[in-house]
Amino acid sequence: MKAVVIGASGTIGQAIVEALGQRHEIITVGSHSGQYQADLKDIAQVRALFAQIGKVDAVLVAAGILHIGPLDEMTPEQFHIGLNSKLMGQVNVALVAQHYLNDGGSITLTSGVDAHQPIRHGANASTSNSAVEGFVRAAAAELKRGLRINVVNPTLLTESASKYGHLFPGFETVPVKRVALAYMRSAEGIETGQTYKVWH
Amino acid sequence: MKAVVIGASGTIGQAIVEALGQRHEIITVGSHSGQYQADLKDIAQVRALFAQIGKVDAVLVAAGILHIGPLDEMTPEQFHIGLNSKLMGQVNVALVAQHYLNDGGSITLTSGVDAHQPIRHGANASTSNSAVEGFVRAAAAELKRGLRINVVNPTLLTESASKYGHLFPGFETVPVKRVALAYMRSAEGIETGQTYKVWH
Repeated sequence: MKAVVIGASGTIGQAIVEALGQRHEIITVGSHSGQYQADLKDIAQVRALFAQIGKVDAVLVAAGILHIGPLDEMTPEQFHIGLNSKLMGQVNVALVAQHYLNDGGSITLTSGVDAHQPIRHGANASTSNSAVEGFVRAAAAELKRGLRINVVNPTLLTESASKYGHLFPGFETVPVKRVALAYMRSAEGIETGQTYKVWH
Repeated sequence: MKAVVIGASGTIGQAIVEALGQRHEIITVGSHSGQYQADLKDIAQVRALFAQIGKVDAVLVAAGILHIGPLDEMTPEQFHIGLNSKLMGQVNVALVAQHYLNDGGSITLTSGVDAHQPIRHGANASTSNSAVEGFVRAAAAELKRGLRINVVNPTLLTESASKYGHLFPGFETVPVKRVALAYMRSAEGIETGQTYKVWH
């Protein structure tokens, strides 16, 4: 299997590369690192990316930023940070990748626990991550040629607790190795339209 | 209670006005009709709207458009139709309304059945409506002064079946009077962060 990992240098991306790389050919993509670079917010860059890479069997995205800030002073501009990056960055990949995947290939996107369990100052995160999951439910029902699409919803990573733990007080963490399994299951399994919650 | 109904001339909006108007003071808002006009996509217009209206007890939104079209040719521009209107139009109202609601007041937004039950060519609808529901889950946990926020998720209206029924083959419809009850429950009840599914 030939698999593209976008966001390959991140904590999750590295774990996906390690898990899938043992048996599959991996192509790494990052905003500033990896074999190929692209800003996912710009679909022209996503189109150029896949035109270079060509046909693949799996596309996995663990990339995208969100705005964290108080609701009572949030602006539409701040709100668009997550919509443009975490949501449309991943949607752009799916819209383009559907034309580059071999029959039966898969797309795996990433949401986050706050889609369902809100955190303080997380309105943009809950919105953007819920949107990604809604997109996957619908796209799964409409993709052609046996193409599949799923989303992995990780809770706070054990490896990220020192950096982001203050945003998730009392949340149990999961090791990134467990999260990587969900991406493997999406890419190598048979399901579509699933949200794999890796929460505890 | 003083309640602002945005999208008041629509099928749902009219039913909300009828249901709440029997016991409450209603202010109607539309894009081109009603006592006040505003394009919700533009937060400056939403701010100007509430600056004119002043303090209220309930804000109910049944407005916003979505893009319906095949996934395999969808563009980011088409995708932004729902994000800008159905999602950000309503988010803009919530961001502004939180500062104009009296203590304990409520915001009620609108999603749609396709957030959970995908329809053909509905990727933008599923995404935007899921995003609205994610926003409500998070905003409910962060609003101050006892403010509440809920979302009504109606399935296909009996009254809209002749216009939109082809998009929802085999979906049971609900009369808009039942949908209006959910808005009343949100505005006059005590719950927050709820998605009221009026499906069958």
